[in-house]
Amino acid sequence: MNHGSFRDRTTADLRAAGLSAVDMVERALAAIDECDPVLNAFVTVDAEGALAAARQADAERAAGHVRGPLHGIPVAVKDMIAVRGLPHTLGSAHFATQVSTQDAECVARLRAAGAVVVGTTTTHEFAYGPTGDVSATGPSRNPHDVTRMSGGSSGGSAVAVAAGLVPLALGTDTGGSVRIPAALCGVVGLKPGYGTVPTAGVFPLSTTLDHVGVLANSAADCALVHHVLAGRPAPTASTHRPVRVGWVRPDALFDTDPAVADLARAAVAGPDVVLGPAEFPEATATHLRELFATIQNSEVFAVHADRVAEHPELFQPEVLDRLRAAENVLGWQYVRALADRDRQRAEVDRLFGGHDLLALPTTPVTTQPLGARQVEINGTTRGVRAALLSLTSVWNVLGLPAVSVPAGQLAGLPVGLQLVARPGQEDLVCAVADQLRRPSAPPSGTSTERQTR
Amino acid sequence: MNHGSFRDRTTADLRAAGLSAVDMVERALAAIDECDPVLNAFVTVDAEGALAAARQADAERAAGHVRGPLHGIPVAVKDMIAVRGLPHTLGSAHFATQVSTQDAECVARLRAAGAVVVGTTTTHEFAYGPTGDVSATGPSRNPHDVTRMSGGSSGGSAVAVAAGLVPLALGTDTGGSVRIPAALCGVVGLKPGYGTVPTAGVFPLSTTLDHVGVLANSAADCALVHHVLAGRPAPTASTHRPVRVGWVRPDALFDTDPAVADLARAAVAGPDVVLGPAEFPEATATHLRELFATIQNSEVFAVHADRVAEHPELFQPEVLDRLRAAENVLGWQYVRALADRDRQRAEVDRLFGGHDLLALPTTPVTTQPLGARQVEINGTTRGVRAALLSLTSVWNVLGLPAVSVPAGQLAGLPVGLQLVARPGQEDLVCAVADQLRRPSAPPSGTSTERQTR
Repeated sequence: MNHGSFRDRTTADLRAAGLSAVDMVERALAAIDECDPVLNAFVTVDAEGALAAARQADAERAAGHVRGPLHGIPVAVKDMIAVRGLPHTLGSAHFATQVSTQDAECVARLRAAGAVVVGTTTTHEFAYGPTGDVSATGPSRNPHDVTRMSGGSSGGSAVAVAAGLVPLALGTDTGGSVRIPAALCGVVGLKPGYGTVPTAGVFPLSTTLDHVGVLANSAADCALVHHVLAGRPAPTASTHRPVRVGWVRPDALFDTDPAVADLARAAVAGPDVVLGPAEFPEATATHLRELFATIQNSEVFAVHADRVAEHPELFQPEVLDRLRAAENVLGWQYVRALADRDRQRAEVDRLFGGHDLLALPTTPVTTQPLGARQVEINGTTRGVRAALLSLTSVWNVLGLPAVSVPAGQLAGLPVGLQLVARPGQEDLVCAVADQLRRPSAPPSGTSTERQTR
Repeated sequence: MNHGSFRDRTTADLRAAGLSAVDMVERALAAIDECDPVLNAFVTVDAEGALAAARQADAERAAGHVRGPLHGIPVAVKDMIAVRGLPHTLGSAHFATQVSTQDAECVARLRAAGAVVVGTTTTHEFAYGPTGDVSATGPSRNPHDVTRMSGGSSGGSAVAVAAGLVPLALGTDTGGSVRIPAALCGVVGLKPGYGTVPTAGVFPLSTTLDHVGVLANSAADCALVHHVLAGRPAPTASTHRPVRVGWVRPDALFDTDPAVADLARAAVAGPDVVLGPAEFPEATATHLRELFATIQNSEVFAVHADRVAEHPELFQPEVLDRLRAAENVLGWQYVRALADRDRQRAEVDRLFGGHDLLALPTTPVTTQPLGARQVEINGTTRGVRAALLSLTSVWNVLGLPAVSVPAGQLAGLPVGLQLVARPGQEDLVCAVADQLRRPSAPPSGTSTERQTR
């Protein structure tokens, strides 16, 4: 299939190209018109609103006023995040007719920095699933193979960037929901440190694990947008070098396709990178995943208890089943999990040892067919959900900044490398990820508009 | 029974009397020797350590060094709070042989301000009960009638002050554990605002409801000690006047003995006090009590789950029964309760309306016989625990400063008036409570040493 104008293009590319905001929005709208009937990345496209905002951006620029680093850049926003005047379905029949009356704080900050919102993107229902194929608004489809999952829950945002429909998109990440679809679709995804971006106006999945993140074509763009979202000035470049990167054997966390692990590991290379082995005890991984389940189960059911009681039929069946299982965690177990998490966070330095960053694959396998719930890894049958979440959710428990970058392809399907940093090190992890960046092989049938860099 | 030298004496009285630290400690030890075999206020009396500390305090004073406002003053510390070198039993057979290796932070602050620790006081097992009569170290007994409860869980601290064994004592208060025994024993008890005093070294009951508080013979002393515990300089007197006090009809919270309510209400009088009715919806009280139960149950079982599983036989049977019931709260209910509590705290101003303080009885009845678990109030049989906690626990949920002051006696048994303030208003609530202070009728057989003021 064809792809839009923004395929692999960064905001720096767009600034260099000198495109007007109206130009960019028109290209985005045209690409969406062309590709989205198949991809289903978007829930709502606000052509009129986006064009009006683009015209205003161009007028402002003509008058010498540049709002900020995203002036005139088209962005898409996951349907878990409120965008004033647009439908806010959360991928659920429960909210089929909801329209947001206000922008979420993160969207307001994007607009203040000049971004133009072109629409909202498909989410797994209530962001409660890493596959991206269970939603009242339909599954988002992987542009590398439209019979396969986008990954989720921020599937539409990853697809929109991967297919070049927009250069930037917002997602949310509770257990990997930005990084997983970024990896499966072959784009960059940043989950920043916990609490760095306000969640006001973002519908909760699990309040103490939810993060607002960014999908883009470069880690530098993720850092740029993150600074806008976090309300901090962009950093002056000051990467200390060399950077010591610790390789976490993914098998310590979950059965992993060796070809995926090899590609991811090979991607950690560069003149300023020193790669060595990291100690990541299997018991720590198991413990962190248990904490994740206890915390998320308690918090997600707290969000949905009334809906489960009153209108269970409006949920997607798989999501309802998961909620009903989540109900049974006991209060004291949750209390202990929070306390354990605090202890784990306090000891995170030990986990890093002498390393500046940790590296591992983002997911243990590449994208699976839509609707698949089992996958064979190294001869063992595993659940797809558990597999997809297995290498990412631990970093949500610890609240650490983590980025997924493309690390090549297997049989035409993208592989993601995940880099994880200590708290407050979003800039470092993005800078290193950006150094590793190389053009991934494009999906078949690349648009003729694609620029070579 | 006779009473010790400190009966009804404030630290100002003691300073005025010019007693040496050794003098005061010797009087405390003599009074404990005389009275405590019956009262059981103390678990451990550290005669040697206290005398050594007193001698040092006197030497320091002779050398011109006064540590702080509590220089040389004897204090007692509830057995939930670690005192270096002393047994730390928590009122439980589980910790029958535990000895603290460090001072809790609050004890360290007391000592830094000059206080001399004479010993540790009886607590309801694990501070989990408002009656004070269930403990591996035996029940503490009410000095007004030794066949009756001290109240709890800081029973020993209240008894030690009420009987004049020490002028000051530390307690902990999770649902009323400072204020309830203060009321039943006829002394002053302050539960400060949540989070104002560090709980490091204090064994938890319910971590988000636990407060370190003070028992004393005057609200001014409570304020003085609170400032030491909170690590803040004592305030310069600046009560704004008149003070608008809203009377909360206790029946909105729980069936209340009308004679108790009348005495408490009559105690709210003074030249600077304007008393009016406060709106306190019954539904709010019910809701806050439900939040209290959900939160405390989850948190207390998180503390004790392993002990319940491994050594249930070491618990007092009543405490074990309560723990087993606490186990069953669900995680999502706890999550919701915390969120609801945050909302209630955010709306606390509305609860106060035009009032500076709220006033109500501390407990709906006076002290009950040791071991009693039912009480008839206005013709209805109610549980003693529920009754004792009914007027105090709501303020723990809201995290507000609250003080209990003596408000006279019914049939020779003390009645407590409770004053509640907005966050940060410990000084105001103590200043107003101090204005209301009047000598309560002493227990029968008052010591000949008692001073008339």
